[in-house]
Amino acid sequence: MKIVIVGAVAGGASAAARARRLDEDAEIILIERGTEPSFANCGLPYYVGGEIESRSKLLVAPAAMLRQRHRLDVRTRHEVVGIDRDARSVSVKNLGTGETYCESYDRLILSTGAAPFRPPIPGIEGAHVLELRDLCDADRMHDLVTTQCSRRAVIVGAGFIGVEVAENLIRRGLDVTLVELGGQILSPWDMEMVRPLEDHLREKGVKLQLNDSAIEFASCPQNENNLIVKLDSGRTLPACFAVVCIGVRPVNKLAVDAGLEIGSRGGIITNEHMQTNDPNIYAVGDVAEVSDFVTGEPTQIPLAGPANRQGRIAADHICGRSSKYRGTQGTSVVGVFGQTAAMTGQNEKQLRRSGHAFRKIYIHPKDHAGYFPGATQMTLKLLFDSVDGRILGAQAVGTNGVDKRIDVISMAIQAGMSVYDLEEVELCYAPQFGSAKDPVNMAGFVASGVLRGDHPVVHMGDELTISESNESELLDVRSEQEFARGHLPNARNIPLEVLRENLAELPRDRRIVVYCHVGLRGYMATRLLQQHKFDVTNLSGGFRLVQNSGQLKEKS
Amino acid sequence: MKIVIVGAVAGGASAAARARRLDEDAEIILIERGTEPSFANCGLPYYVGGEIESRSKLLVAPAAMLRQRHRLDVRTRHEVVGIDRDARSVSVKNLGTGETYCESYDRLILSTGAAPFRPPIPGIEGAHVLELRDLCDADRMHDLVTTQCSRRAVIVGAGFIGVEVAENLIRRGLDVTLVELGGQILSPWDMEMVRPLEDHLREKGVKLQLNDSAIEFASCPQNENNLIVKLDSGRTLPACFAVVCIGVRPVNKLAVDAGLEIGSRGGIITNEHMQTNDPNIYAVGDVAEVSDFVTGEPTQIPLAGPANRQGRIAADHICGRSSKYRGTQGTSVVGVFGQTAAMTGQNEKQLRRSGHAFRKIYIHPKDHAGYFPGATQMTLKLLFDSVDGRILGAQAVGTNGVDKRIDVISMAIQAGMSVYDLEEVELCYAPQFGSAKDPVNMAGFVASGVLRGDHPVVHMGDELTISESNESELLDVRSEQEFARGHLPNARNIPLEVLRENLAELPRDRRIVVYCHVGLRGYMATRLLQQHKFDVTNLSGGFRLVQNSGQLKEKS
Repeated sequence: MKIVIVGAVAGGASAAARARRLDEDAEIILIERGTEPSFANCGLPYYVGGEIESRSKLLVAPAAMLRQRHRLDVRTRHEVVGIDRDARSVSVKNLGTGETYCESYDRLILSTGAAPFRPPIPGIEGAHVLELRDLCDADRMHDLVTTQCSRRAVIVGAGFIGVEVAENLIRRGLDVTLVELGGQILSPWDMEMVRPLEDHLREKGVKLQLNDSAIEFASCPQNENNLIVKLDSGRTLPACFAVVCIGVRPVNKLAVDAGLEIGSRGGIITNEHMQTNDPNIYAVGDVAEVSDFVTGEPTQIPLAGPANRQGRIAADHICGRSSKYRGTQGTSVVGVFGQTAAMTGQNEKQLRRSGHAFRKIYIHPKDHAGYFPGATQMTLKLLFDSVDGRILGAQAVGTNGVDKRIDVISMAIQAGMSVYDLEEVELCYAPQFGSAKDPVNMAGFVASGVLRGDHPVVHMGDELTISESNESELLDVRSEQEFARGHLPNARNIPLEVLRENLAELPRDRRIVVYCHVGLRGYMATRLLQQHKFDVTNLSGGFRLVQNSGQLKEKS
Repeated sequence: MKIVIVGAVAGGASAAARARRLDEDAEIILIERGTEPSFANCGLPYYVGGEIESRSKLLVAPAAMLRQRHRLDVRTRHEVVGIDRDARSVSVKNLGTGETYCESYDRLILSTGAAPFRPPIPGIEGAHVLELRDLCDADRMHDLVTTQCSRRAVIVGAGFIGVEVAENLIRRGLDVTLVELGGQILSPWDMEMVRPLEDHLREKGVKLQLNDSAIEFASCPQNENNLIVKLDSGRTLPACFAVVCIGVRPVNKLAVDAGLEIGSRGGIITNEHMQTNDPNIYAVGDVAEVSDFVTGEPTQIPLAGPANRQGRIAADHICGRSSKYRGTQGTSVVGVFGQTAAMTGQNEKQLRRSGHAFRKIYIHPKDHAGYFPGATQMTLKLLFDSVDGRILGAQAVGTNGVDKRIDVISMAIQAGMSVYDLEEVELCYAPQFGSAKDPVNMAGFVASGVLRGDHPVVHMGDELTISESNESELLDVRSEQEFARGHLPNARNIPLEVLRENLAELPRDRRIVVYCHVGLRGYMATRLLQQHKFDVTNLSGGFRLVQNSGQLKEKS
């Protein structure tokens, strides 16, 4: 068996090592365009920022190790430039010598990854417009911020990489502007979830420019700021360099030229064994189209974990095993100056687009027992099927324990669990680690209460807007002190503690919308009023979510 | 509906609040022997140690709040002394006045908890032999270590509370001896997992006395050390006070006297709605016998999370809902001077006792990507069914990320998942939070490899002992440097990198036991040798586990 693998990072390297473990006799050729195989691409921003000090740390499986331990024929600085499917061979170009040769295969694995999308903006091909895809890019940016002491940078695109690069350039002391075409950073999350992170970025010195885009990168050689970035809004930003990280596109040219089937987003279509429409050719990692674990629909989600598993599955299948890929859930996490955002499954935007009948709830639990020092508050959003309660997605933002809760909920999605299951799960509790009712249990309680009709909720911005709130009776059940510090327009204040004594003051001719700070007292008040036959509903996520999501700011 | 609840901590308080949310009209009487309802009993050691500075923090739901918000009739310093099941009434003693009165009920919930077991050791009833069950106990110990400046303490019993009290008394500067009858601390974990924690306790100054027990507490009034604790080993330990935390027993006297059915461990037998054999009486929390989630067998596991859920379920059932308790998994976590031990499901000792056919594996993954600063290593043990791979239990010990992985695996157990599912799950990855192949995935890979026959493993102390290791060929595949720093007796060293070139040196007439430091290179070597038709097996957990578990020390 002769296996040729194109691309030696996550998916390709995993496939090669797995194939060797399963078949000591196979000839395995790993062809990599870059200088190093299997580098830590998720670490690149942190190398630029100096958090990872040593470049050698990024070389997680150096070529020598792959050759010695796994007896892989590693060919770096070689590029596959064509596939002859009938002959089962590839044309390989030695980038050092320029010569091209032919290499036959029994099975071919394409792990060519995805490349940063570079729209045809004037000047984008200039020397000071960078991207951050590989070690070479990282070296260049590292050099600019250390040796050449660049002082200003403009980052275009506020996805994972844009946000991580922003943090790391600020760490290096640069003046950083982060430009994003959309109305929010980190588009895999929903807007109200990342609003606090946007504030946090600004507090840390990032100049965040939402709803704007670069329309030209003009060079300015006489100035230490080599570049003038012109924005659609008319602003111009001088900079030593710019980083374009608008998103990535599958590097599919080889596959297209070879006539392999390509999906609507440019990914190579594969079956559950990662096999393309040519059974001798597999595609893994960011270049492969996969199915969404929750919806079953084709999708394109570039993530390292899935790439690694896909590589393993392709190798398994080539070596005669029946391993299957279950689809990508999109579980992901990003650190933003000490804050954390994590998510899994579908977000609300996707569910709305697909027309799936869903419900949502928000809670603001502490990461561990409030009575133990150091507890921090997170915001957790749970999206679930409005009929059977199946969990469709979750997002959390906070300081500590955020990744843990999303990992737990990602398991619930893997297992096809519903919100009713979350009520019952049993998680670690000691006061420094969690709560007797863990945030995940709490999310289950609240969501189940919504579906059972125990807990009618509304959402500001959806069923309710701040301006129309006078159609309903807005009832703030927090303390007088909390109310005095800020409240929704037109709300009246009856603290939960004295609500029973003041029922006569509440209207019976219209709906009462109750709220508190995070939603818990609001829930108690809702239960109370519901049983006294009021038409009542609770504002999910409470005043805090309205504040976080910036709706009050936009209003005032 | 009139509901009387006996005991107002975790289970009782949860039941009361839930009943109120479901039934605004119910009369709910919450009777508590102590001075405060719903205190944070898991926080008591940390209040003693000063980590939690303010006593008021421990009062998570003060009586006034329960009365105002939930309109509960809270009666502290009242004790239920008898149940008349035919009359549906309880006798209540007002501990302040001494008078006894009768209170009728429609439904009764027993949440009397569990009390520290105090064996009949001479002197155990003395004034300086403490326990740590309630606020009163915590106040006394707090007073001893702050006002009275006690310098020496002996703790008897190295379970959760014993270990937590040891940490907190060391924090207060005391000289602490921790005496444990068994051969290990923290008996819910397996011995080899907690050996590093025992070393850690000793490093932090705790004098750990395993395989020993207190046989007398002699008072010594002329000395500032009021107590002489005599041990079975013949040692005598002077101390200002002793703390007995050998374990707890269900406080079942009321139930026994009332003729309710009691299990073999003293817990009140309940059905899945937490109902006793008297359908008008429920039992929740530490006093209730529950079923083990994994085995379905009756058990007694005192934990706060399950107690809270049981209280909720009892209230649901009383209010006409069909909520069911799924059994207790035993998911738990304990902090030990910055180290963490967490577990879920069955441990190996339990599985051996019950005769369940299981397999086990050990891995030592980092909590996050090794290339990102601050990664720490944990040890993770996975126990699974030897036929279908269903996950039966897991234990982890380390610094960071330990509770997260056990929470994730606890979800897998809840969902009835197998080790093959763990291979496929998709968890959060960014370099500061995890790895592209998360420790949970890795555990799945290794365990699945064992079941598929790809990865034969042996365990030191089980199939292999250090003395008999010369029957097999012991092959150390680490580097020469690692080998020189320490290795198993009679092992030969052929580094993985040069193994293929040295196959001729290996025996074909007997089994080769391969090992490396953590098990990964050993696995690769095993795969390699297996395909070259050697009889080969890998030492699970590697040299590190042998070191950790103290087997080399015991030998030398």
